[in-house]
Amino acid sequence: MKDLSSLGLRHRNGLLEILDQTLLPHSETWLAVSHPDEMVSIIQRLAVRGAPLIGVAAALALAKHAEGGANEAALRVAAASLRASRPTAVNLMYAIDRMTSLGSWTSEALAAEAERIFDEDVQLCEGMAAQGADLIRDGDGVLTHCNTGGLATVGIGTALGVIRRAHEQGKRIHVYVDETRPLLQGARLTAWELGKLDIPYTLICDNMAATVMRAGKIHSAFVGCDRIAANGDIANKIGTYSAAVVAAHHKVPFYVVGPRTTVDLGCATGRDIPIEERGSDEVRAGKSPANANVFNPAFDVTPRELITAIVLDDRVLKTSAPENFPIRLA
Amino acid sequence: MKDLSSLGLRHRNGLLEILDQTLLPHSETWLAVSHPDEMVSIIQRLAVRGAPLIGVAAALALAKHAEGGANEAALRVAAASLRASRPTAVNLMYAIDRMTSLGSWTSEALAAEAERIFDEDVQLCEGMAAQGADLIRDGDGVLTHCNTGGLATVGIGTALGVIRRAHEQGKRIHVYVDETRPLLQGARLTAWELGKLDIPYTLICDNMAATVMRAGKIHSAFVGCDRIAANGDIANKIGTYSAAVVAAHHKVPFYVVGPRTTVDLGCATGRDIPIEERGSDEVRAGKSPANANVFNPAFDVTPRELITAIVLDDRVLKTSAPENFPIRLA
Repeated sequence: MKDLSSLGLRHRNGLLEILDQTLLPHSETWLAVSHPDEMVSIIQRLAVRGAPLIGVAAALALAKHAEGGANEAALRVAAASLRASRPTAVNLMYAIDRMTSLGSWTSEALAAEAERIFDEDVQLCEGMAAQGADLIRDGDGVLTHCNTGGLATVGIGTALGVIRRAHEQGKRIHVYVDETRPLLQGARLTAWELGKLDIPYTLICDNMAATVMRAGKIHSAFVGCDRIAANGDIANKIGTYSAAVVAAHHKVPFYVVGPRTTVDLGCATGRDIPIEERGSDEVRAGKSPANANVFNPAFDVTPRELITAIVLDDRVLKTSAPENFPIRLA
Repeated sequence: MKDLSSLGLRHRNGLLEILDQTLLPHSETWLAVSHPDEMVSIIQRLAVRGAPLIGVAAALALAKHAEGGANEAALRVAAASLRASRPTAVNLMYAIDRMTSLGSWTSEALAAEAERIFDEDVQLCEGMAAQGADLIRDGDGVLTHCNTGGLATVGIGTALGVIRRAHEQGKRIHVYVDETRPLLQGARLTAWELGKLDIPYTLICDNMAATVMRAGKIHSAFVGCDRIAANGDIANKIGTYSAAVVAAHHKVPFYVVGPRTTVDLGCATGRDIPIEERGSDEVRAGKSPANANVFNPAFDVTPRELITAIVLDDRVLKTSAPENFPIRLA
């Protein structure tokens, strides 16, 4: 397999490595992945996360397994295990299904397909940035939630890619970064990326976005997504729905950005999207009573009514145009 | 001064002590307070917090200073320093103003007034509980934010006192506790109080309340307040406004609970309430880039339009009745 490199994943000298996102921003530690089971564990503990990125990472892990000599039976087991490692982001299922439906289980065929998935993800990001950047105006304050940049994809990102492109176009923008409890992907990852890119930002707690909107400082919100249902409902990181409700109240346009690989026409509506629940200690974080009863959904569903438009890599689906739904893929 | 005792404050054998709320729930450490300057520091670093409680604590510190022999000049300096220790909760100014407007600076007069302020706060809590408990029905799920119980007052609390009274009435209720970023008063303090009271609760991140409402599990929201403007706008812990917006979207009644001592007729509207901004490290919490730019307002303003009713200790002010505003105090 050829050398590949992104902000959070790389393949060089035959070694597949993942940047451990749980240790960012304080430590940049790369984890070597020599078996799909390791990738499953890395995905489950969120050392690699971001809907597009986990799809690419899973495909690469499967291709490397073939390169290492695994036979078709072993590859089928590994594919099933990778595909089931997290339930909500459909990109993971999409990438693995592409690999397993090749009709060939040769190392060469799987490596070539994984490389294509990687390269296409870079292009999908470019497409979203091109489609979405015009929605941000010079002088805008932009809210974002979770991390949707170079750490969530192998390109420039989904929602954060759009923001980055607008910045590169010379627009003076200011990003309000939701810290994104419980795992603080905004505070840890998005703040780190924006700092590297020299894009001005202010970190806020999730519960402050409404107050910043009321003060008139936020002109649009851009978030990513883990699954887009056919009717335009979307699942994304917990807190997205709350942000969308608050944006609607303040008449702040709310944009969801995702590639076509995040559309799941098998889900008619948001109610059909499985929502992962994670462990209580992520919320307790050593602060609450140790036996505190906790509800910890990792994602929530935002209905289409609260979304201004869905920015895909090849078009912008305005939700005010009913003919855009159910979504049709070329 | 007589012995006094509440969940977070006590006076016995002539010693005034404060339960250090920054160390809860993992350690119950009492801090002896021998000088008003110590109380100022304890208030500023939130070892004692809660609008009614800091008023009582400041009055007691002033009375103890007089008992220790401070003269009128020293007492005036101490009173000014205590009064300015935090800007948003008006109970602090109210309590100190009562002490300094006595016309007498004798130790006996100040001690008697501080004792009255303490005893009255207990009664104000009972009043709010009596006024508000009927608003909670058997089977209700109730959202609350921050901490408004025995740790925020010297009685059973404001919003949490109402919830406690409904529970004591035998109603089966379930409390959804916003963790309340950045300082986690919900996760640390409210969860601890509810556990002690054996009231069933679920701890959630602030950004999850909308999702729980959408699932139909929250039937009303009860929050406290740090200041009530004449027109019915209120200031309360950051995140309250966001919760109110989200509640309005889901048609969940939103109740604000506070004693008459929290009403400030000197503020015509919420725009007149000073909002404290606190340090960036409270939000960074060692997780984000160390130089992350942060906005950290400790409070926000919720306009009357988003409030169903304000529960005072002597009546319930429905916001749908315009004749209730501007608020008139007996």
